[in-house]
Amino acid sequence: MKLRRVFSGNILVVVAILVALVFLGSSCTQREPPTEKPSVHAAEPLPSWDDGMAKKAIIEFVDRVTNEGSPDFVAQDERIAVFDNDGTLWAEQPLYVQMIFTIDRVKALAPKHPEWKANQPFKAIIENNKEHLSKLTEHDVVEIVMATHAGMTTEEFEQIVKAWLATAKHPRFNRPYTECVYQPMLELLDYLRANGFKTYIVSGGGIEFMRPWTEKVYGIPPEQVIGSSIKTKFELQEGKPVLIRLPEVNFIDDKEGKPVGINQHIGRRPIAAFGNSDGDLQMLQWTCLTDGKSFCLYIHHTDAEREWAYDRKSSIGRLDKGLDEAKARGWTVVDMKRDWKRIFTFQEQ
Amino acid sequence: MKLRRVFSGNILVVVAILVALVFLGSSCTQREPPTEKPSVHAAEPLPSWDDGMAKKAIIEFVDRVTNEGSPDFVAQDERIAVFDNDGTLWAEQPLYVQMIFTIDRVKALAPKHPEWKANQPFKAIIENNKEHLSKLTEHDVVEIVMATHAGMTTEEFEQIVKAWLATAKHPRFNRPYTECVYQPMLELLDYLRANGFKTYIVSGGGIEFMRPWTEKVYGIPPEQVIGSSIKTKFELQEGKPVLIRLPEVNFIDDKEGKPVGINQHIGRRPIAAFGNSDGDLQMLQWTCLTDGKSFCLYIHHTDAEREWAYDRKSSIGRLDKGLDEAKARGWTVVDMKRDWKRIFTFQEQ
Repeated sequence: MKLRRVFSGNILVVVAILVALVFLGSSCTQREPPTEKPSVHAAEPLPSWDDGMAKKAIIEFVDRVTNEGSPDFVAQDERIAVFDNDGTLWAEQPLYVQMIFTIDRVKALAPKHPEWKANQPFKAIIENNKEHLSKLTEHDVVEIVMATHAGMTTEEFEQIVKAWLATAKHPRFNRPYTECVYQPMLELLDYLRANGFKTYIVSGGGIEFMRPWTEKVYGIPPEQVIGSSIKTKFELQEGKPVLIRLPEVNFIDDKEGKPVGINQHIGRRPIAAFGNSDGDLQMLQWTCLTDGKSFCLYIHHTDAEREWAYDRKSSIGRLDKGLDEAKARGWTVVDMKRDWKRIFTFQEQ
Repeated sequence: MKLRRVFSGNILVVVAILVALVFLGSSCTQREPPTEKPSVHAAEPLPSWDDGMAKKAIIEFVDRVTNEGSPDFVAQDERIAVFDNDGTLWAEQPLYVQMIFTIDRVKALAPKHPEWKANQPFKAIIENNKEHLSKLTEHDVVEIVMATHAGMTTEEFEQIVKAWLATAKHPRFNRPYTECVYQPMLELLDYLRANGFKTYIVSGGGIEFMRPWTEKVYGIPPEQVIGSSIKTKFELQEGKPVLIRLPEVNFIDDKEGKPVGINQHIGRRPIAAFGNSDGDLQMLQWTCLTDGKSFCLYIHHTDAEREWAYDRKSSIGRLDKGLDEAKARGWTVVDMKRDWKRIFTFQEQ
């Protein structure tokens, strides 16, 4: 009942996304030339961050909780930092990457499902039928997600994700999605880990969609990835143990679900949380509305030239209530345009 | 639907346990004098293990996967070892510790619930009414568990568990339950970690019942504890973020649930698994029925004098199918009486 309610809350976003898809042109091209990735082990921490308030606040917090003489010292075991993924570690525009994966997956599976040509909602996706896509029901969306994410073993799904990521390109930057990650955030992850923090992803995205690549891209191992999931079932197939992915929602790791997921997986309250949308608000509240020493940061997408500018009215990554609460609580807000010298690794400073 | 089926499978055990409770006498006394805890950092690994086949098999496996020159070398990140808790790391007789906690909790809460004196199933527990307890229904048992484990915040529940463990004593050994842990297994945990393994608990017991003490007792931090759980709900209570424990099953981490829980939390397949009952069989299959290098071990409770002797017919920790499969697969089986020089830390060698 609860899950259904939570899930249905997300459906509106998903529908909006599917609709937005049809407006995705193919005119997007690579805008910036590749450059050397700066070393994250530079003596000066956070080299891609401007020497402004945000960088200063981060360094001050880390100094405070890692200095044994400080009254705010936090033992290494308790230095848990949680990061949203979409829009916080990698780009979420023009669509969540997993939604593009889902659409591509419907198209890739279509030859094996000739009946989809005649059956909605698959017909509409295959034909990019804007009018029909604008009327998708919750049931349609669940059907699409389950048709593309369930019915195989966990290991088969991992291979599907890896194969897709190896060839798919971001429509604007014409690069693999795993290169469309924020250089300043890679530096921040590295800086926190160098200071004894354990870094976790806590994303509304699918846990099994992220795990195949987060260690290589972010240095975050599978066991430190928390996300939404469908149910799985243990089976012996010809004597070989497998987990079959079932067409049934298990957990939605978004909004109120994020603190629940954090508690379920980590069992400790984080002392630092990083997000970019209203979907992260409860995670930041869970982390920072306490008596302890903690740090919360919102990334505000303000750079239409190098990335995108969006906040209160965006259907993807809306930042509205969160922006108000950040101001009221004195949380750090990153102004991407001002605070980040470089956004993507492939962009010049 | 699925959860309900899984849960109901466990209900029989729970009923058996509640019934068994009434046969628990108060005649149990401390049998062994306390002794010095041997150092787990001794030069010779596994000092409480007899130099037999089991110890040899463990050391040989660890050498094989940690020796960089070995064809079976496993990178440190992939060295995941999973341990059942009840009957594998600590004693599960004469009753699962969490069931004793549950019974004690009903009695402790009884003054605040005067209606329980007249209402079953609580009346039967308060009065130790054997006849009624032998007829508990699934609904009764769920009611008892939810009345004792839900309705408070996660932090309140943690304090309840800690307070109970601080005073409760094992009925036979007259010591805190957290001292009724197996010394050879503490040495094994330490030995594996010294060889780059990450050690996890994967238990049918409640995840929030274990986390308050596993780090101190086993050196296993909360984020490496996997167990059964009830649902929780995020709330702001007078501006303070809390997670409320709801009277609704979330996940049963037993039998087929163990590989599911492992995949959900770790996202990698373990290379070593340790259990003692049929409830661990699927976890051992998931770990060892693969092409890779792996190690599976069953603890066979064979020592009625120092601990208990039970296997195929026990209602608690039944080891029947698992014992057959261990023999068929060539998994290591620990004969507690023969293979362990010492069982509990407080027992003399």
